[in-house]
Amino acid sequence: MNVEMANLAEALKQILPESQVSINPTVREQHSKDESYHTPCLPDLVVFPETTEQVSEIIKLANTYQVPVVPFGLGSSLEGHVIPYDLGITIDFSLMNKILEVREQDFLVRVQPGVTRSQLNKELKKYGLFFTVDPGADATLGGMAATNASGTTSVRYGVMRDQVRDLETVLADGTIIHTGNLAEKSSSGYHLNGIFVGSEGTLGCFTELTLKVYGIPEHVMAARASFPTVNDAVQAVVSILQAGIPIARVELVDEPSMKQANLYSETDYLEKPTLFLEFHGNEAGLKQDVEFTKELVADLHCELIEFETDNAARNKLWEARHHLAYAYVHGFPGKKLMVTDVCLPISELAGAIRIARKTIDELGLDGGIVGHVGDGNFHVLLMLDTTDPLEVSKADQLNETIVLYALERGGTCTGEHGVGIGKMKYQEKEHGEALRVMEKIKQALDPQNILNPNKIVRIKEEG
Amino acid sequence: MNVEMANLAEALKQILPESQVSINPTVREQHSKDESYHTPCLPDLVVFPETTEQVSEIIKLANTYQVPVVPFGLGSSLEGHVIPYDLGITIDFSLMNKILEVREQDFLVRVQPGVTRSQLNKELKKYGLFFTVDPGADATLGGMAATNASGTTSVRYGVMRDQVRDLETVLADGTIIHTGNLAEKSSSGYHLNGIFVGSEGTLGCFTELTLKVYGIPEHVMAARASFPTVNDAVQAVVSILQAGIPIARVELVDEPSMKQANLYSETDYLEKPTLFLEFHGNEAGLKQDVEFTKELVADLHCELIEFETDNAARNKLWEARHHLAYAYVHGFPGKKLMVTDVCLPISELAGAIRIARKTIDELGLDGGIVGHVGDGNFHVLLMLDTTDPLEVSKADQLNETIVLYALERGGTCTGEHGVGIGKMKYQEKEHGEALRVMEKIKQALDPQNILNPNKIVRIKEEG
Repeated sequence: MNVEMANLAEALKQILPESQVSINPTVREQHSKDESYHTPCLPDLVVFPETTEQVSEIIKLANTYQVPVVPFGLGSSLEGHVIPYDLGITIDFSLMNKILEVREQDFLVRVQPGVTRSQLNKELKKYGLFFTVDPGADATLGGMAATNASGTTSVRYGVMRDQVRDLETVLADGTIIHTGNLAEKSSSGYHLNGIFVGSEGTLGCFTELTLKVYGIPEHVMAARASFPTVNDAVQAVVSILQAGIPIARVELVDEPSMKQANLYSETDYLEKPTLFLEFHGNEAGLKQDVEFTKELVADLHCELIEFETDNAARNKLWEARHHLAYAYVHGFPGKKLMVTDVCLPISELAGAIRIARKTIDELGLDGGIVGHVGDGNFHVLLMLDTTDPLEVSKADQLNETIVLYALERGGTCTGEHGVGIGKMKYQEKEHGEALRVMEKIKQALDPQNILNPNKIVRIKEEG
Repeated sequence: MNVEMANLAEALKQILPESQVSINPTVREQHSKDESYHTPCLPDLVVFPETTEQVSEIIKLANTYQVPVVPFGLGSSLEGHVIPYDLGITIDFSLMNKILEVREQDFLVRVQPGVTRSQLNKELKKYGLFFTVDPGADATLGGMAATNASGTTSVRYGVMRDQVRDLETVLADGTIIHTGNLAEKSSSGYHLNGIFVGSEGTLGCFTELTLKVYGIPEHVMAARASFPTVNDAVQAVVSILQAGIPIARVELVDEPSMKQANLYSETDYLEKPTLFLEFHGNEAGLKQDVEFTKELVADLHCELIEFETDNAARNKLWEARHHLAYAYVHGFPGKKLMVTDVCLPISELAGAIRIARKTIDELGLDGGIVGHVGDGNFHVLLMLDTTDPLEVSKADQLNETIVLYALERGGTCTGEHGVGIGKMKYQEKEHGEALRVMEKIKQALDPQNILNPNKIVRIKEEG
């Protein structure tokens, strides 16, 4: 550690208790990576603030020292967002993990950024409420806002950005702002919630989040529908959406992924391309939705549809779906997970999945396809030996094929995982001149480029 | 007209046919105002482009001449957004009024900014689709995106920002960008749709919009529910939302406004505080929702609930609601409309409406209260003699009382009308340091301050 860093560490210890400023190699190693295949890199220092004011003081110091700051939740991101390639300070938010307020009547909660989605849902259950966004990991809500995460229920309730009413945010100079308010809608000023959600720590660090929650639906029914082909399954989803059925979840799991799920979750589901479905509503409406869905999927050659009405079986079904990434990780010890993440207009989805499968097979890779197909979003789950350059290169080739196919059809290179380091190379192609606008915003709000530098946009050094 | 303007007019005639560049006083007068009480001001020139490239060339010229540019749809805004107080060029989008593409399967449409909401809905009906956002005026979609408009259905389907997938936008230097894509969701780059929607022409001019549309619901039922007091009506809305009934519309119309509506729309609805309700869904679900709603409103002293199942009666009901502002304008010839527009967390709504009514009465003003109460948004409709300084000052006092009450309770000074010139004075109070972020974004994207200058944020001249 050089003299400047030592001075910075000393200065940080004036802000935080000594135990909350760490240069310990093990702690730094824990903050050097996420759940992706991207190469780790250790931060110089890790700090564990407990208050907004401390975060503000930390960032002021970083600004003075011109040292990068990377916010860190649980490290469950999938594109290297939290890997501090430019070194500096990692701010770990695990001590800021309190649920501050539940405003039952307003369907709002106020939380610190280190609260996880399952922690929040456990608390909300007492009020008959739930938080809808459910990415695969039990991520922190701060991290989920930073990447604009989504999940299985987005088809009905929207993505993370749709749930954010306000972010208390610390800017690059330590200023504390609020990006929104508590009202359901507003036309006052620029919609800062819009750009701060999904900004991956490059515009500010969130210290409090006010989020929208929903009443637990009166009736819920889940189902698994098995199809002879992935294409039939996707067409069934299109039919369901066209029919205006307000489906709450509709997830595709292909044949290899069903096998992996059965192995990991000890289920014995039919190993065919499958839709996992869920319906929310009042009893009568839900019954009618379910009957209509049965008819629609039958027309698309559905071989078997099984309903789970009791809580336990339903939870088991969704656990099997949520744990799929871990099922793959578990099934391929020593390998690392790479996940593609494009999203397309639904009319282009079947074609995109067909090309993905063809390319996986041609390249001789082992990959499963899963997806939030109601949103037009799908993932290829690949297990990689990252020490084998040929395998890595094939995976990159697959990813590129899938991304370019999506971009040529009005889609996006990432539906929910974010840009991080992995999707930087597609930003120019996807956004064109709009990327210049993003760069200008970044430069205007972070002129010294200290906030998670070189993620999303790369600011060229002057001179 | 000075020499510089004459030169600019000549240069514009190189871009557009002569007939589409106007310095005619009548044409300029038509573009000097909106539907509000704000003082008119004539632009130097009005242009009527037909293509994106023309808009780009016009803005490039404005940039070269350092002359303001104000986009103009139909002039139905309510806070002076389109009044060119800094003079310059007004771009009238009425010739860019084509529906370019309907992507049925993707629930998307692509339109030019001059298309109105009723024009779009007429076309969409052929496909069994509809566009949800319905402000009082038959506004242009470009204007609605510029103010982040909303309406009676936002409680179910969201506001304008929620419908925008992509904006083809011309920036201050004439560059053409796309702010989004066609995918249902994206975590790629900063969410430019977020800040461009609601930017009121201060960051760019929209030349094409890709918008989300919905299937016309299988079953629709509308109702009017009359209550002894406004407070009972608001509490009934809270009950309906708490019960998780997916209400599609829920509008409050107070007693004076019911009188005005009956006069204008030739209806004979009960002149009591009334909720106008609408339910969308499948037949069985809707029936259950309606029965449950009847029970809930009965508990809140509902005196009469009447259902309209046939199309004609339902349309008449919503027309009466939509035409309320015009009903007031019609009822008070020679006076001008002033509308307040706060939005609060729903738990604070009843108190806010109570204070509004008390203040209206204390000041001796004639005002009706209507509102999208499911969103926590309400309006006072006031008819003003704008030549009477005392009346104007009382109206300002009322507006301020209502706005400050909302801001102190986590609300916003404008739920859907936008900032324009009328709500500038509340921006500092509402946003605090976040207003500095908005100013930085404006300066970064419009360094010469030519795009609808001195709306939303005021950029101080240097030196």
